[in-house]
Amino acid sequence: MPRNAFYAQSGGVTAVINASAAGVIETARRHKSKIGKVYAGRNGILGALEEDLIDTSRESAAAIRALKHTPGGAFGSCRYKLKGVEKGGHEYERLVEVFKAHDIGYFFYNGGNDSADTCLKVSRIAAELGYPLVAVHVPKTIDNDLPITDCSPGFGSVAKYVATSMREAGLDVESMARTSTKVFVLEVMGRHAGWITAAVGLARDKPGQAPHLLLFPEIPFDESAFLAKVADCVKRFGYCTVGVSEGLHGPDGKFLSESGLKDAFGHSQLGGVAPMIANLVQAKLGYKQHWAVADYLQRSARHIASKTDLEQSYAVGKAAVELAVSGLSGVMPTIVRVSSRPYRWMIGHAKLEDVANVERKMPRDFITPDGFHITAKCRNYLLPLIAGEAFPPFVDGLPDYVRLKNPAVRKKTKAA
Amino acid sequence: MPRNAFYAQSGGVTAVINASAAGVIETARRHKSKIGKVYAGRNGILGALEEDLIDTSRESAAAIRALKHTPGGAFGSCRYKLKGVEKGGHEYERLVEVFKAHDIGYFFYNGGNDSADTCLKVSRIAAELGYPLVAVHVPKTIDNDLPITDCSPGFGSVAKYVATSMREAGLDVESMARTSTKVFVLEVMGRHAGWITAAVGLARDKPGQAPHLLLFPEIPFDESAFLAKVADCVKRFGYCTVGVSEGLHGPDGKFLSESGLKDAFGHSQLGGVAPMIANLVQAKLGYKQHWAVADYLQRSARHIASKTDLEQSYAVGKAAVELAVSGLSGVMPTIVRVSSRPYRWMIGHAKLEDVANVERKMPRDFITPDGFHITAKCRNYLLPLIAGEAFPPFVDGLPDYVRLKNPAVRKKTKAA
Repeated sequence: MPRNAFYAQSGGVTAVINASAAGVIETARRHKSKIGKVYAGRNGILGALEEDLIDTSRESAAAIRALKHTPGGAFGSCRYKLKGVEKGGHEYERLVEVFKAHDIGYFFYNGGNDSADTCLKVSRIAAELGYPLVAVHVPKTIDNDLPITDCSPGFGSVAKYVATSMREAGLDVESMARTSTKVFVLEVMGRHAGWITAAVGLARDKPGQAPHLLLFPEIPFDESAFLAKVADCVKRFGYCTVGVSEGLHGPDGKFLSESGLKDAFGHSQLGGVAPMIANLVQAKLGYKQHWAVADYLQRSARHIASKTDLEQSYAVGKAAVELAVSGLSGVMPTIVRVSSRPYRWMIGHAKLEDVANVERKMPRDFITPDGFHITAKCRNYLLPLIAGEAFPPFVDGLPDYVRLKNPAVRKKTKAA
Repeated sequence: MPRNAFYAQSGGVTAVINASAAGVIETARRHKSKIGKVYAGRNGILGALEEDLIDTSRESAAAIRALKHTPGGAFGSCRYKLKGVEKGGHEYERLVEVFKAHDIGYFFYNGGNDSADTCLKVSRIAAELGYPLVAVHVPKTIDNDLPITDCSPGFGSVAKYVATSMREAGLDVESMARTSTKVFVLEVMGRHAGWITAAVGLARDKPGQAPHLLLFPEIPFDESAFLAKVADCVKRFGYCTVGVSEGLHGPDGKFLSESGLKDAFGHSQLGGVAPMIANLVQAKLGYKQHWAVADYLQRSARHIASKTDLEQSYAVGKAAVELAVSGLSGVMPTIVRVSSRPYRWMIGHAKLEDVANVERKMPRDFITPDGFHITAKCRNYLLPLIAGEAFPPFVDGLPDYVRLKNPAVRKKTKAA
């Protein structure tokens, strides 16, 4: 007898997380002997805790296909850490209760490190309770910090967006630098790992082009070394463009963005390391500056998604279902790099014990010795991940993103 | 005998100003009996003052064609106001001296309101000095504030970028709002006119979708009305997205961005109305917020340029040359809207006396009575301007933008 599946999106969404959802749902629909309906959690795992399930079987094939070109989380996501017994909660047990009520035999959890850990715990607690459940994690994070997998679905599209944006803004600044802005700073995401900052570096294919400098979260900010580099760059090229991680920190280990900016109301200002760096340059070197903070634009920019990233995001969703129906539980599909030039990859899988709560750092030899740019080795790793375009359909000049109906499944349990 | 032409880019560059350059150069190349070489000013009009001319005849047809897909100013632009005799300068006379030395009979000036005025003055002073010169202005400004022409080349591409970005970020915020960011603020350009802010409004095609609120430079910021709207929006939809003009000002007429933000070094912070608005919301309503400042990304985003805007930018360059060879001087090609649905346009022309220093404001009936969104009339005007895609070629995952050789013409005058 087929059993139902539960799918949930977890943590920060991406331009292509819905492609993983499409991979899960379309593949499940091809395994009707083993998988009945795919229920999605409304707002991620909260949908399971609250028994607020979405019946994806009521969506047309065309709507599910359209998920491949739609950014954001089509079922809603959340930032929520399940409370285990040790924290005074019984949330894992509650999940199993809801799964049981809806005959859910497959749990697909689409997220990053934390979610891999949750997925593993759910699988273990179900086993302890004697409830048969196949739990497979579907990897996703723009931070690119999942271990074992060669890259994390969602990262390649952010990488393509930030590199494209820096290349474009660089041409703008270069053409105006004689009389206008000399220093431009672009702030990108990646609080703990510099993968996205590194991707900004791809914009440059010849020395002297943007970006001139990168400020990584891995390298403590050295104000005087930075200012010297900026001054030298303006002298040589007439302008200087900088990519900076939101997670840049000082030698004291504190985030620069938390170092005391006050707004007009006297409130301390959250975020915004780009304006700090730009104002520092202006104050110390006197150069006219401009800055941009891409924020959510970078992780939702489906219009400039990487085709490679899109294909991999779909592939891990598809593989998760294939692993599950073959009986494997407590695993995660991975991207395995077969070769870089030409780029070839395949799907492998890893045990969740080896994934959960392990962060992959950027290797030091991906950053130049002076700490301000990426190495050739880093370029070779990153370039394939942004390869290929996969433009969404446009209607009336704008991307035509799908909105699902997201009908609720009737509740069967008492509220937790 | 054919005479040479001078072309210069002026003021802030755009994603498609180089398409106008291509229109000028390619069309001039087809009128060899009247136009010899096209010289471009390096860094705009400064190139003429300093006799730093670029010989565009040394660029291949392919390189000139590639200008159509390359953002920024391929010859360099500048912000520079010519000093007339009344300001103690003789810069107009200097221009004529340089033009005479290089047998320049055609002056094509690619810019906004100020440049139209400069173009007119150059044409008059040449006439006073008895130097035969045909001066034609090529319209360009992301601010969309040139009079007579239905729209300004460069605006449609920014409009498409900001609307796409808001639609994408809106989906992101919507999917995370249950447990994360409730209010998202996107700051866009347009210091004096709200055209770009209005374009953000195009992202929404159904009530309840992003953007929920727009803050125009035309409408003085009413803090309590705004906060009430935000609270209502979060209550009804679970989240609220806001597009704000960098030129938003308070009831006192002062820009909000100049109202006293201090950074950690005690320097007053330049720019950044988005963080101010976002922090205000958090302080007064307690909602978690995020904000983005697109800055130069919006005006250099050739990867998401409007095909309509691209075609119009090329067409005004082409028309400028055609007007010039037909003997018209002191004019500017314009975009004439023939119909909105279906959208049809043609090229007309206006006298520079009627263009110079006239700013076109956004009509009040383009903004809803409450001041927080656009009307259907505004949508009808804006939608055709973002229609169509014109993706650049990509190599290795990134847009393949051209860099010209930009060889200098040998100087013939003494330095001014």
